[in-house]
Amino acid sequence: LLKVCRLKVFNGVNLASYDTRQGKQPDGEERLAQRLRAERAVRGLSQEELAFLAGVHRTYVGSVERAERNVSIDNIEQFACALGMDISDLLKPV
Amino acid sequence: LLKVCRLKVFNGVNLASYDTRQGKQPDGEERLAQRLRAERAVRGLSQEELAFLAGVHRTYVGSVERAERNVSIDNIEQFACALGMDISDLLKPV
Repeated sequence: LLKVCRLKVFNGVNLASYDTRQGKQPDGEERLAQRLRAERAVRGLSQEELAFLAGVHRTYVGSVERAERNVSIDNIEQFACALGMDISDLLKPV
Repeated sequence: LLKVCRLKVFNGVNLASYDTRQGKQPDGEERLAQRLRAERAVRGLSQEELAFLAGVHRTYVGSVERAERNVSIDNIEQFACALGMDISDLLKPV
């Protein structure tokens, strides 16, 4: 456990894509990205519409959905609120 | 729903303590703070020990547990990994 946790800290490398290719659990950014895309699709919302509801910029939604952003808990909460979800559910694997 | 979501965006005010006083659901920062304190207590870990396991500074753990930080998803993941938990479980209400 320790080794897995600290690998990312000490290397300073984002292992998201590596992990996914190896069939491991996607990391937090990737998980949020997948979940946002899925929940948006279920509700028939465009990125623009979700951006409006969450009070963020349209291009920010795109970058979060590409797992390019180290999103803060306040912004995760904005997305969860916009989708009518609990923040913990927004971080569950799709 | 919309009104609740956007209140925080437009006012730019952290309503965490306000919400808690009103007996509402604590916001994300407060929830993470409560959960970290609880999970650390269950494991008998000090703030220093959790900081070491998560690869962050001791004082950072303290400020997160006082809900003073807009913690990023990468850091939430470090804490979850250090505690052997899933990130979504770390954001569930205590």
